[in-house]
Amino acid sequence: MFNYQIKIEYIGTNFVGWQIQKNGLSVQEVLEKVLSKFLNDKISVIGSGRTDAGVHANEQSAHFKTKKIIKDKNIFINSINFFLRKYPVAILSIKKRSKKFHARHSANKRTYKYYIINRRSSLVLEKNKAWHIKKKLDVKIMKKGAKILKGTHNFSTFRSSSCEAQSPIKTLKKVTIVKKKSKIILTFMSKSFLQQQVRSMVGSLKCLGEGKWNLEHFEKAFKSKKRSMCAPTAPPYGLYLYKVEY
Amino acid sequence: MFNYQIKIEYIGTNFVGWQIQKNGLSVQEVLEKVLSKFLNDKISVIGSGRTDAGVHANEQSAHFKTKKIIKDKNIFINSINFFLRKYPVAILSIKKRSKKFHARHSANKRTYKYYIINRRSSLVLEKNKAWHIKKKLDVKIMKKGAKILKGTHNFSTFRSSSCEAQSPIKTLKKVTIVKKKSKIILTFMSKSFLQQQVRSMVGSLKCLGEGKWNLEHFEKAFKSKKRSMCAPTAPPYGLYLYKVEY
Repeated sequence: MFNYQIKIEYIGTNFVGWQIQKNGLSVQEVLEKVLSKFLNDKISVIGSGRTDAGVHANEQSAHFKTKKIIKDKNIFINSINFFLRKYPVAILSIKKRSKKFHARHSANKRTYKYYIINRRSSLVLEKNKAWHIKKKLDVKIMKKGAKILKGTHNFSTFRSSSCEAQSPIKTLKKVTIVKKKSKIILTFMSKSFLQQQVRSMVGSLKCLGEGKWNLEHFEKAFKSKKRSMCAPTAPPYGLYLYKVEY
Repeated sequence: MFNYQIKIEYIGTNFVGWQIQKNGLSVQEVLEKVLSKFLNDKISVIGSGRTDAGVHANEQSAHFKTKKIIKDKNIFINSINFFLRKYPVAILSIKKRSKKFHARHSANKRTYKYYIINRRSSLVLEKNKAWHIKKKLDVKIMKKGAKILKGTHNFSTFRSSSCEAQSPIKTLKKVTIVKKKSKIILTFMSKSFLQQQVRSMVGSLKCLGEGKWNLEHFEKAFKSKKRSMCAPTAPPYGLYLYKVEY
């Protein structure tokens, strides 16, 4: 058996998410179908993590095992992408890995980006690709909030009630907020994230930015470790799985 | 009569272009219809320039005259964008201008951006929003080509045969090429451009980048002032009218 890593780009809008589910089409299902057909082998694709319905990926990472040898990477990529052409999914690269390589367990850095467009006018070029917030956000105070999140903490406030992770302790290695014209780009890097952690953090940072919360309240909510203290979760369509590193 | 300037964002993919035409829907037509209805006045919208079918705009600029006073800008923007909601068009801002202001004639700086995605895999997130080129481009030599274009020149080589401008002499104030991962961003700034000038220049810079042309040939084509020496024009869907300044 050979073990291959693939990197994948997708638009999450019309999928039920990364993970196979009974109620609709997932990215994983589409990939397994196409890979199984092309390799004439029953392929299971293991992702670096799930992304929710509506969440996009610049570079999701996954692995699959097969008895088939993939000799020519370029032909493989061209062929798979040809089969994928009616879906908003493409394979970016393929790499042979050791038997031990596991897309989820071996990952040591995950980067997510969240896009907010902060303006009055409805979205056109960024429709379904960013969170549209009309009220002017104070990016300065959002940056102060981001600083509080950085480092090793108990992130229970920012954890979905259905999260199955054993520990709520995570280390946020990087949190940055950059504003370019009306676009606000939030970047989060960690070894791993709790379920809906990024969207929960963004939702609370947005409350801070629009003045609904002050910095004290933000910190109090974070330190309370209570899900009930979290602001409404930010919508999925602004979120991008940007990079997975090993 | 009052004279108003509006800024407009649009996705050009499904339009016949900016300008009203008999063979399909244009951005101008959509705007005139919605503005006329909202203001209950026959509105003609004059753009800063035409964009071809498939070309996008981050910020097109236009003006229109009306006997109606627009008191509340926010209500105006919200209402117009509500009426525009089924089209990939939005009004970004409105400003009262002097009687003399003319969106085309008064403009003194136009900025276009052209996006190339240079990678093997088919486009997903940037589908219809960038030119997909599989062959690795040499950005260094493209930058050298861009330098040759900068300044005041006769741009006849890069001018559509149907261009109606009186003179082929234009001054390119800025030409930059930046590469970010697989994305190549070309920026062009000038008081005004000849018809299809940007797409013609990009087409020729691409020939340079892929090694079909060397720098000598590029310069020879440019200096020949012959349209027949131009490389195939770059496709419209990578082009964005980025900004118009007055």
